[in-house]
Amino acid sequence: MSPARFGLSAPGAPSPTAPAWRTTHWFNLPSGRSTLELSELRGRVVVLHTFQMLCPGCVLHGLPQAQRIAAAFAPEHVAVVGLHTVFEHHAAMTPVSLAAFLHEYRIHFPVGVDACSEGGPARDAIPQTMRLYSLQGTPSLVLIDRAGRVRRSGFGAEEDLTLGAAIATLAAESFHHERDAATGPPAATGRPAD
Amino acid sequence: MSPARFGLSAPGAPSPTAPAWRTTHWFNLPSGRSTLELSELRGRVVVLHTFQMLCPGCVLHGLPQAQRIAAAFAPEHVAVVGLHTVFEHHAAMTPVSLAAFLHEYRIHFPVGVDACSEGGPARDAIPQTMRLYSLQGTPSLVLIDRAGRVRRSGFGAEEDLTLGAAIATLAAESFHHERDAATGPPAATGRPAD
Amino acid sequence: MSPARFGLSAPGAPSPTAPAWRTTHWFNLPSGRSTLELSELRGRVVVLHTFQMLCPGCVLHGLPQAQRIAAAFAPEHVAVVGLHTVFEHHAAMTPVSLAAFLHEYRIHFPVGVDACSEGGPARDAIPQTMRLYSLQGTPSLVLIDRAGRVRRSGFGAEEDLTLGAAIATLAAESFHHERDAATGPPAATGRPAD
Amino acid sequence: MSPARFGLSAPGAPSPTAPAWRTTHWFNLPSGRSTLELSELRGRVVVLHTFQMLCPGCVLHGLPQAQRIAAAFAPEHVAVVGLHTVFEHHAAMTPVSLAAFLHEYRIHFPVGVDACSEGGPARDAIPQTMRLYSLQGTPSLVLIDRAGRVRRSGFGAEEDLTLGAAIATLAAESFHHERDAATGPPAATGRPAD
Repeated sequence: MSPARFGLSAPGAPSPTAPAWRTTHWFNLPSGRSTLELSELRGRVVVLHTFQMLCPGCVLHGLPQAQRIAAAFAPEHVAVVGLHTVFEHHAAMTPVSLAAFLHEYRIHFPVGVDACSEGGPARDAIPQTMRLYSLQGTPSLVLIDRAGRVRRSGFGAEEDLTLGAAIATLAAESFHHERDAATGPPAATGRPAD
Repeated sequence: MSPARFGLSAPGAPSPTAPAWRTTHWFNLPSGRSTLELSELRGRVVVLHTFQMLCPGCVLHGLPQAQRIAAAFAPEHVAVVGLHTVFEHHAAMTPVSLAAFLHEYRIHFPVGVDACSEGGPARDAIPQTMRLYSLQGTPSLVLIDRAGRVRRSGFGAEEDLTLGAAIATLAAESFHHERDAATGPPAATGRPAD
Repeated sequence: MSPARFGLSAPGAPSPTAPAWRTTHWFNLPSGRSTLELSELRGRVVVLHTFQMLCPGCVLHGLPQAQRIAAAFAPEHVAVVGLHTVFEHHAAMTPVSLAAFLHEYRIHFPVGVDACSEGGPARDAIPQTMRLYSLQGTPSLVLIDRAGRVRRSGFGAEEDLTLGAAIATLAAESFHHERDAATGPPAATGRPAD
Repeated sequence: MSPARFGLSAPGAPSPTAPAWRTTHWFNLPSGRSTLELSELRGRVVVLHTFQMLCPGCVLHGLPQAQRIAAAFAPEHVAVVGLHTVFEHHAAMTPVSLAAFLHEYRIHFPVGVDACSEGGPARDAIPQTMRLYSLQGTPSLVLIDRAGRVRRSGFGAEEDLTLGAAIATLAAESFHHERDAATGPPAATGRPAD
C-alpha cells in the first residue's frame, strides 16, 4: 500500500534529514545518562512527540496517545521521545514544574526540554528545535524513519488507527535497504529481536 | 424524595457550618475585588471544587465537571468556586503557574489559593482550608446550602446525573425556611429571579 | 431557582395533562401484571423515554441515560418508563425483536409498545401515543410531574447534569400542593419514604 | 519488528488457510453481484469482522472500529467484510432486521449472513462459518493475509493502535513473496496503485 495513505512520504522520495535536537534538560533517561541524541537512535523508527505541559490538547489527547504508542511497539524498533517545546507562559512551565507533571501523569519515556532561542524567550518565544523542525504548535508529532529522515510531521489530534498503521509501515521498512539510499553507515545501536 | 439519595444530609439534620476560607490569592474575581468570602454567598448554594493543577483526576474529570455546573445553574442561585489546595509539588504549582493553567483551560469561575499551614509547606503539607474541611485529597467537592452549612463532601469522581440532582435539591430548598433554623440573618445578597 | 433553567414549565403555569398511553405489549412488568397505565403513577415524577431499538442515537445515548436515571432516583418517587415508538422499518422492530434487544442491553425498567395508527403502519407510520404527545422523533424524553402534567418534552441528546437537575426539581415539588391545582384525587399509590 | 508484537503469526510460520465462507445472503455488494467469495480477495489483506446486530459489544465497539478500518485503508489493499454470525435470538435477527440495522448504522462495507448449521438453529445454534473459524463469540476479528492465510483471530475489544499496526504489517508484506510460499497462483484480482 502506498505510504501516502497514512501521511508518509514514500521511502524512495527525497525526505529531509531530521535535525539534531537542541535541548537543555532531559527526564526519564537511563541511570548514568544525561542526554539523548537523535543520532543514537539511527536504525529505529523515532516517534517525536512535542508538547507543552499546560496545553490542554497535549494533556487530553497527545500525551495519552504517545503513552499508548510506547506500550504498543517494541522499544528496540520504535523509540518514543517527548520534547517540551515551550513557546508561551515560560515562567509557568519550568523544568521544576515539568518534573512534577511527568511524575503525576506517569510519563516514563524520555523527555527533553527544547532550548530557548539564543536571545532567550524575551526575544523570540519559539524554542530552537521547534523552529528547526518548522512545527506549528503543540501537540505536534514527527515520525522519523530508521535512516533518520522526517517522513511525516503533523500538528493537532491524530487518529490511533492511522497512526498505528503509519508507524508499523515505517517499522516494516528494511533498514539495510534504506541505508544504501542514505549517506553513511548507521550508528552501532543494538536491535535485538523482539 | 429523601436528600440522602444524592448523598445530602437532610435539611433538618444538624450539619456543620462551613468554615470561612483561608486564602492568599484569588483569580477570576470581578474587577475591583481582591478576595471572596464564603459569608458573602449566604443565600446561594455554593459548589466548592478543590483541586491541584497537576492532579490528573482534577484536570480530566473534576474541573470539566465544575465548568459544566457553572454553565448549567443560574449564578445568582448556585455559585461555583474553585480552591487550589496544594499539598505536594509546592514549587511546581505556584500562583504564577496556576494563572497560566486557568488561562489555558479557560476556567472562568473564581479560584482561590488555599493558605499554607502556618509553619509553611516544609512543616505540614496540608493547607489550612483543606484541613478545616477535613478533605482527603483532590479533587474534592463540597456542597454548601443557602444557610451556609456543609450538606455533602466527597473525594474523587462524581456522576453528573446524581450531582445535578443534589445541587437542584439544595437550590429548591427555601432559604427563608432554612434561615429560621440557622443562627442569624443572612447577608444582604441579591437573588434576582432567574 | 426558576425551573425554566432546566427546560421545565413553571409549577403554576398551565401545562398540558399527559395523555394516557396507547400500547399493545409491555415488557419488564412485575409478575402478574400485563399493562401499566400512566394514571397508576400519579404522585410520582414520570420519566418517559421513547425510542426505537434500531435508532443509533437511542442505543448510544438515550437508553444508557434512561438506565442511569433509573439507578439514580428512588423508584417510589421517580418512575422511568420506556415506550417503543416505531415509525420506520416496522417489520424489523417487532415485539419479538424488541424482547431480545431488551435482554441483550439489560434494560430492566418497564417498556411499552406504542400502538400503530388505526389504519396500520401502511396508512400512517406514526404510532398513536407518539402522535398524542407530538413527539418529533427518537429518542425523545418527556418529564411528567407528580400531578400528571407534561412539564418538559425534548427530542435528541440531553446533558446528564441538566436532566438530573430537572428531575430533582420536579421531585422536590410538593404533591399535595400540586393536587389542589389538579382536577381530582390521586390514585392510591404507595409512596414510602426513600 | 516481530509481527508477534501485534498478535500476528510470522509470515514464514505455518498458518491455517482461511476457510471459504458459507453464507445465505449478502448486503452492500456492488450492483449485479449477489455473493462474495473469499477467494476473489486473494492478493488483499482481508479484515473479517463477525458480529450480531443485537450484541452490545459489537454495536458500541466492534462495528464502529470496522468502519474506521474501512475508511483508513485503501480498499484495493485491505478489504473489510462483515459476517452476521447469529447464534442466539435467531427469530429477532433475521435478514429483514439486519437490512434495517445496516441502513440505520450507515454500514457500507459488504456483509454476509452466516449459514445456519445443517440441522438448523434448533439443532445447533452455531452457524457454519463461525464454527469453521473456531470463533468464540461476537464480536470477533479475523485478519487474513494476501495469500489467504489466517494470521490473527481474536474475540472481544481490540485497541485501534495495535490493530492499525497489525493490518499495516500485513499490508506491507510482499504478495509475490508470499505467493511462492503458497500452493497456487492468485485469482486475477485487480490491485491498482493506491
